[in-house]
Amino acid sequence: VAEFFLDPRIEATSYTVGDLPLSRVQLQDDARFPWLVLVPRRPGAVELSDLNGLDQTLLLADINRAAIAVRMLGEAWDLPVTKLNVANLGNVTPQLHWHVVGRRPEDPCWPGPVWGQGEVERLSEDQVTASLELLHEFFSR
Amino acid sequence: VAEFFLDPRIEATSYTVGDLPLSRVQLQDDARFPWLVLVPRRPGAVELSDLNGLDQTLLLADINRAAIAVRMLGEAWDLPVTKLNVANLGNVTPQLHWHVVGRRPEDPCWPGPVWGQGEVERLSEDQVTASLELLHEFFSR
Repeated sequence: VAEFFLDPRIEATSYTVGDLPLSRVQLQDDARFPWLVLVPRRPGAVELSDLNGLDQTLLLADINRAAIAVRMLGEAWDLPVTKLNVANLGNVTPQLHWHVVGRRPEDPCWPGPVWGQGEVERLSEDQVTASLELLHEFFSR
Repeated sequence: VAEFFLDPRIEATSYTVGDLPLSRVQLQDDARFPWLVLVPRRPGAVELSDLNGLDQTLLLADINRAAIAVRMLGEAWDLPVTKLNVANLGNVTPQLHWHVVGRRPEDPCWPGPVWGQGEVERLSEDQVTASLELLHEFFSR
């Protein structure tokens, strides 16, 4: 049985929050947007269709919870979310992963997509600590 | 009961293929990418969370079928798909809609996202006719 591990490119650009029923949850290292990345713990999965029906249903549940968490993060960061962007691209990093990004008309990429646009603003150590605490508390409910 | 209608901005940039169990299927009017847009027939829905659990499961099934159709379209257009991009953005057009876009390393936006990038190349009349025929045949199976 193949073991699950995070692609190093995902690891390099995000912090691990923990595990939902299907997915490893990562906090994207970008202060411009409250942004979580969900990585289904299924070695070798690249496309949605690589997940079986049960896993796809688990993914939906993970996305729904992450969406609430992203809105909560937006409130904490004073970047209140008015629209969610939910996407699997994987053009650069094939390992199946789903972005849940909190958007608002004042964000630097609005209304365009966020991927590969503008300059990343890395999170401060304090912001990482506070955000991970908030997210742990939320996901443990 | 509110009636479902397509947002005029979606109507202006795509052709109607037909209906899947949850979604109206639209062929995006852009010859650069085999690209379908799924619009759940639920008036007022903007976010994934506006769909109930059953509708979310129907959406998954619609996306899975559209993914196969996009790959088939890619073969027909001689633009073989190597990665799918599946996304709900809705920053410009809030009506809930999901993009299923066929990508390949030779496409003009690779590896960046397609939305709002470069110049749209509209489909020829012949390409629309042939593609809709192919899609009707596929979705009627």
